[in-house]
Amino acid sequence: MTGTMAELRLKGLAKDLHAQMADLPIVSPHGHTDPVWFAENAAFPDPAALLIKPDHYVFRMLYSQGVALEDLGLGAGAGRDPRAVFDILAAHWHKFLGTPSHLWLDATFRDVFGIDMPLTPETASAIYDHIDAALQTPEFRPRALFERFGISTLATTDGALDDLRAHRAIAGSGWTGRVIPTFRPDAVLDPAAPDYARDIERLGELTGQDSESFAGYLDALRVRREMFRKLGATATDHAVTELRTEWLDHATAGRLFAGAIKGSLTAREQDRLHGHMLIEMAQMSCDDGLVMQIHAGSQRSTNQALLDGFGKDMGADIPRRTDWVGGLDALLNRVGNDSRMRLLAFTLDETTYARELAPMAGHWPALRLGPPWWFHDSANGIARYLDQVVETAGYWNLAGFNDDTRAFLSIPARHDLWRRGVALHLAEQCDRGLMGRDDAARIGRWLAHDAAVDAYRLDAA
Amino acid sequence: MTGTMAELRLKGLAKDLHAQMADLPIVSPHGHTDPVWFAENAAFPDPAALLIKPDHYVFRMLYSQGVALEDLGLGAGAGRDPRAVFDILAAHWHKFLGTPSHLWLDATFRDVFGIDMPLTPETASAIYDHIDAALQTPEFRPRALFERFGISTLATTDGALDDLRAHRAIAGSGWTGRVIPTFRPDAVLDPAAPDYARDIERLGELTGQDSESFAGYLDALRVRREMFRKLGATATDHAVTELRTEWLDHATAGRLFAGAIKGSLTAREQDRLHGHMLIEMAQMSCDDGLVMQIHAGSQRSTNQALLDGFGKDMGADIPRRTDWVGGLDALLNRVGNDSRMRLLAFTLDETTYARELAPMAGHWPALRLGPPWWFHDSANGIARYLDQVVETAGYWNLAGFNDDTRAFLSIPARHDLWRRGVALHLAEQCDRGLMGRDDAARIGRWLAHDAAVDAYRLDAA
Amino acid sequence: MTGTMAELRLKGLAKDLHAQMADLPIVSPHGHTDPVWFAENAAFPDPAALLIKPDHYVFRMLYSQGVALEDLGLGAGAGRDPRAVFDILAAHWHKFLGTPSHLWLDATFRDVFGIDMPLTPETASAIYDHIDAALQTPEFRPRALFERFGISTLATTDGALDDLRAHRAIAGSGWTGRVIPTFRPDAVLDPAAPDYARDIERLGELTGQDSESFAGYLDALRVRREMFRKLGATATDHAVTELRTEWLDHATAGRLFAGAIKGSLTAREQDRLHGHMLIEMAQMSCDDGLVMQIHAGSQRSTNQALLDGFGKDMGADIPRRTDWVGGLDALLNRVGNDSRMRLLAFTLDETTYARELAPMAGHWPALRLGPPWWFHDSANGIARYLDQVVETAGYWNLAGFNDDTRAFLSIPARHDLWRRGVALHLAEQCDRGLMGRDDAARIGRWLAHDAAVDAYRLDAA
Repeated sequence: MTGTMAELRLKGLAKDLHAQMADLPIVSPHGHTDPVWFAENAAFPDPAALLIKPDHYVFRMLYSQGVALEDLGLGAGAGRDPRAVFDILAAHWHKFLGTPSHLWLDATFRDVFGIDMPLTPETASAIYDHIDAALQTPEFRPRALFERFGISTLATTDGALDDLRAHRAIAGSGWTGRVIPTFRPDAVLDPAAPDYARDIERLGELTGQDSESFAGYLDALRVRREMFRKLGATATDHAVTELRTEWLDHATAGRLFAGAIKGSLTAREQDRLHGHMLIEMAQMSCDDGLVMQIHAGSQRSTNQALLDGFGKDMGADIPRRTDWVGGLDALLNRVGNDSRMRLLAFTLDETTYARELAPMAGHWPALRLGPPWWFHDSANGIARYLDQVVETAGYWNLAGFNDDTRAFLSIPARHDLWRRGVALHLAEQCDRGLMGRDDAARIGRWLAHDAAVDAYRLDAA
Repeated sequence: MTGTMAELRLKGLAKDLHAQMADLPIVSPHGHTDPVWFAENAAFPDPAALLIKPDHYVFRMLYSQGVALEDLGLGAGAGRDPRAVFDILAAHWHKFLGTPSHLWLDATFRDVFGIDMPLTPETASAIYDHIDAALQTPEFRPRALFERFGISTLATTDGALDDLRAHRAIAGSGWTGRVIPTFRPDAVLDPAAPDYARDIERLGELTGQDSESFAGYLDALRVRREMFRKLGATATDHAVTELRTEWLDHATAGRLFAGAIKGSLTAREQDRLHGHMLIEMAQMSCDDGLVMQIHAGSQRSTNQALLDGFGKDMGADIPRRTDWVGGLDALLNRVGNDSRMRLLAFTLDETTYARELAPMAGHWPALRLGPPWWFHDSANGIARYLDQVVETAGYWNLAGFNDDTRAFLSIPARHDLWRRGVALHLAEQCDRGLMGRDDAARIGRWLAHDAAVDAYRLDAA
Repeated sequence: MTGTMAELRLKGLAKDLHAQMADLPIVSPHGHTDPVWFAENAAFPDPAALLIKPDHYVFRMLYSQGVALEDLGLGAGAGRDPRAVFDILAAHWHKFLGTPSHLWLDATFRDVFGIDMPLTPETASAIYDHIDAALQTPEFRPRALFERFGISTLATTDGALDDLRAHRAIAGSGWTGRVIPTFRPDAVLDPAAPDYARDIERLGELTGQDSESFAGYLDALRVRREMFRKLGATATDHAVTELRTEWLDHATAGRLFAGAIKGSLTAREQDRLHGHMLIEMAQMSCDDGLVMQIHAGSQRSTNQALLDGFGKDMGADIPRRTDWVGGLDALLNRVGNDSRMRLLAFTLDETTYARELAPMAGHWPALRLGPPWWFHDSANGIARYLDQVVETAGYWNLAGFNDDTRAFLSIPARHDLWRRGVALHLAEQCDRGLMGRDDAARIGRWLAHDAAVDAYRLDAA
C-alpha cells in the first residue's frame, strides 16, 4: 500500500521563497465552512464525520471505484459506524495517489494531528483512535484550530435568506476570530431556482419590503446586502452554470419578474431575468462596495440517481465550457469602467485563462481573476494557472488565493500548497532571468496574503 | 539530413522505473491490424507496403509537403515501384523531425530490423534492401513478430457484418497467439451511414432475426455481439463525430428506426436514433459484459478530393471540440451507476481532460479514461494527459494504454513510448515528494500492463 | 520597485543554439509599423509618443490598474506632457513583472538605448532624458534603426484603399531598406464594415472598374492586388472575428453583393457574402501568388465606452473560441490541394493548436501555421505553441516568426524572444534524444529566418 506521506517538496530558491511566505496569516475570503462551528465551538463528532462525509473530493473518488455512498455513512447509511467508514478510506487510500486529496489529508494527519505514519489498512485503527482522542481535547475545538492555523479572516457562504444566527452569535461572543458571512443570493436571483416565489416572499418578510413589486424586490436585496455588510461581509457570491448577462430596461425586467413569481416564464425568459439580475447586483456593488464573485461553469448534480437519493453536492458536479467574453459583455459594459466596482471571476474552464480571462483582467479596471478553483486547485492546476495568466494579466490583477473548502482541517494544507506552487513559479522566473529575488519575494507575499486582503477589501471593512 | 535515430531518453529514477516496465507483455486491446495477417501468416510484401502505404501518419505529412499520394503508391499509383516510394520517404525524412512517426519508425528500423544507420537519401537503398530481405525470412512473418514483440493479447476492430473468417481461422489454427475481434457496429447503428438499410438487412441474415422490426433489430445486435464474444471479443467500439446520446421510449425509437430504413429521416432524427442506439449498446454491455469504447470527435474525410480519389482514412480526419458532459448525460444516467457497466472514453479534444473527463471518471463508477489517442499519442501528448487527468481521476480510473494502430511493426515502439512517458511522469512525482518509489513502481506496472487487462476484462474472458 | 532588467536567460546547448541564430537578419513579414516613418525618416517625437501611446500592450495594463487613458496622453489627453506620461509608466512598472512587455521594454532600454539601470520612479527622469536626447540624433531615425536592427524585409499592413504614397516614396527614395505593403481588404470584403458601400465605390475609382457590379468588383480587387504586388507586396491579410467560409454560386454571390451595397442584407447574409469573398481572395491568391493570411478570433473593441471615447485598438480586443475545421472547410476544399496556394493561419485560441491547426497543417499542402500571436507571443506562449504543434505538424509546416507589432523599437526584442524560445525547445529535444545538434541547428535557422522567407515567398518576389 501507499508508503509515503505526500508533500510537494521544494529546493533551493523555491524553498527560500516559501519560507518567507510560510508564516503569513491565512486569509480565507471564500469558502464553505459552517459558521455554527465557530459560534458553538463544540467538539467535532468523529474522524469520519470530520474528514470523509463532508468532503466530496474524497467520497467521489471512492464512489468512482465502486464504493457505495451508504457504506460511507451518507444518505441512508447515516447510522454507519464511523470506524468502518474510516477503514474503507484506508483500504482505498492508494487510489488517491497523485491527487490533491492525498496531499491535503496527509498534511492533516501529519501537521494537524501529529501522526507520523502513512494511512494503510494496518494503521487505520491506530490513526482513527489518535484522531478520535484528539477531537475530545480543547485544542481541537473549532476556535482553537482557527487560531492555531493562523487564520486572520474566514468568510463563509450564506444564502440570502439565511438567518445569520451563527454569525450574530460569533459577533456577540467576545471571541476575536474574524468569521464573516458572504451574501449568496442565487435562490432569489434565478427564477429557475426551486421555491423561487416562496423565497422572494420570505425575502420581503426579512427586509420589510414589498418584494412582489420589482422596485420592492430590488430594495429588499439592497436591505439584505446591508444586513450582511453589518455583520462584516465584504463580498457577494454568484454561481452560474452558463454565464449570460443582459441589461433589460426597467419595464421589461419588471414584466419578467412578475412572470417569474407567477411561474409563467419560459426557460429563455428565466435566463434573461437572471442575467439582468447579475447586473443589478453589480450595480449595487458599486453603491455598497461589496465585492462581487462569479463562479461559473459547474453543471450541478449530473447524476440524477445520486441527486434523488443523497441530495446536492455529492460529487457529480462537472465543469463545462464557459464563454467569459460573451457572458460578461453586458455586465462589464455597464460597470466595468467604474472605479468602485470589483468583480472576481472563477472559472472551471482552464482554456479561458490565456484566451479570455487574462486578456479581460489585463484590460478592465473592475476585473480580477480568482485563483484555480475546485478540480484545478492542485499542484499542476496552480502551475497551469500561473503559466497561463501572468504573462497577460500580470500579478496585480489576480485575487490571491482562497481555499473554497468545507473541509476545515484542510485549510492550512490548501494555502500551503498554493504558496508552494507560487514559490516554484517565482523561483523559475528568477532562474530564467525574468525577475530578481526581491521582486519574487514581494510577489510571493502579494499572492500568499496581500492580494486576497486587497481583492476582498478586507482592510477597509 | 537528419543524422540521429530518435529515442526518448531517460535518466536516473525514470530509467529505473522504465526498466521495470520494459519486459512486461504488451497488451494491445484496441487497434486496427488486419487479422488476416495472423490467420495466413504470409510474408509482408515489401517495405513500402508495410511501412508507408498503410500508415496515414506517414503519408499525410508527405502530402502536406507537396508529395502526391499517387507517388506513394496510393490510389491510381498502386503499381508504383515500392523502392521509389521508399526513396520519397528518405528524401523527406527530416520533415518528420519532432514527430512521433520519427520515433516509431526509427525504433522499427533499429529494434525490429537491427539497422544502425539513420535513414537518409544515401542510406535509403541499403535500408530498403535490408528490410526487403528480412521480410522474406520466417522471423518476420506476422506470428513470429507477434511472439517476438511479447504481445499477450491483440484486439482487432471488426465491422458488425464482418465474416470473422480470419478470426475463426486463427482460433482453429492451433497457434497460441491471442488475437481477438472487437465489435464495431457503426454501420448498423448510425442511420446516416451509407448503405444503412442494406446493412440492416444483412445483419438480419447473419443472425437469423427479423432485423426490419425494431425488436428484431435489437435482437440481431444481441446475437451478433454474442458471435463476437464467442470468438474472444471483450469489447465493442463506437466512433462518433459529434457526441450525443438520448434515451427514447420504445415507440419513438421504433418509429425512427422504421423511418431510418425507409431513408425518410431528417439529419436531426438520424442523430436522435443514433444517440439512442448508443444507449441500447450500453445496456447490452451491462447484460453481456462487453466493455464499451467510445471514440469521439474526429471529423472524418474533410478533404473531399482525397475522399473521391483515394477513399477513407487518407489523413484528412481532423479533431473537433467534444462536449462529454452533455454528450454522455443520457447514457450515464441510464447505466453509469451500474456495477456491470464499463465505458472507456477516448477524446481528441485535450481541453476535456481536466475540465470534463477526469472529473467524470473520478465520479462515475462505469467510466474509465482511454489513453492519449491519435495525434495525442506522442511524448508531449502523454505528458499533457498525465499532467491533466491524474490529479482528479487518479490512476485507477485510467484504462492503461492501447496503440490503436494499423502499423503492426510500430506496436512495440508505441507501447515503449507510453512506458517511457509514464516513467518520466512517475519519476517526477517521486522527485516532487508526491509518492515513494514503491508506489511509483506499482503504478508503472498498472499503467504499462495491468490497467489494460483490467479495463478490457481480459482476465475474465 | 522592480530591480532587475528582465531577459530570458539561456544555458548550455540552448545558449549555443541561440548564438547561431542571434545574428541572422530579421524577417518581419507581418506587422503594423507606419510606412511614413521610413518614407520621411523624421525623428520620433518623444519617449511617450514612441514607447507608450502606440503600444496597447502597455496602456491596457495601466488602464486595468486604474490609470485613466487621458493621463497617458490618449484621447482628450493628447496635449499632456510626455514626461508626465513616462512617469506614470515608471510608477507602475512593477505591474508589468512577468509580462512580455517588461521583457520588450527592458530590451529596448538596454539594447537600443544603452541604458543600464532599471526603470523606477527614481530613474524615470534620467531615462526619459536619455531617450529624448537619443531621439534627436541621426542614429535613432527610423531608417538608421531599421539598418541597425538588421531587418532584411519589413511588411506593413495597408487597407485596400490606402493611397500607398509612403510606400511609393520609399520605393522612389533610393534607400535600400525593403519595406513592403500588405493587402488588407477587410473594409471592402465585409459587408458589415462601416462605410462599406462608399468604400466599394472608392475601390472602383482607384482601379477604374465598375465596382458596383459583382464582376467589376472582383476585377477591381484583382487590379488592386496587382497594385500592391507591384510595390513589393507578397501577401494579403484578413481579420475575421468568427471564422466562416462558404462557396456561393456566382448568381447568389452577385445577388448578395447587390444587397450589400444597398445595405439591405441581414447579418446572416452579410456573413455569407464575407465568407464567400474569403474564398474569392484565396482563388485570386492561386492566380497572383499573394500569400493569404487569416487572423481569426479577436472580438474587437469590447469596451464600448473606450470605443466611443478613444476609437479602436485601445486594448479591449479580446480573443474568443475559433472553429478552424468548420470555418476553413469550404475554402480548403476549394483551393487547399492547389500547389499554388499558400494560406497562413493565426489563432488566438491555443486549444486549436493540437486539436485542429496542427492536424490540418500536417495534411493540407496549402496550409502553414503562423507563429504565436498577440497575447500568446510570450515566453510561455512560444513554449506552448512548440509543445503542441510540432509533434503533428512538424517544423516544415510552420511559417516561422513575425512580430505583428506597431512598436517599432521592440522588433529586435520580439524576434530575440522567439529565437530564445526556439533554442530552449530545441535544446530540450536534443536532451531528450529526439534529435541531434546538427538537426537542431538547422531547425533553429529555419524557424528564426528561412521559414518566414519561404512562407511569405520573399525570395521569389
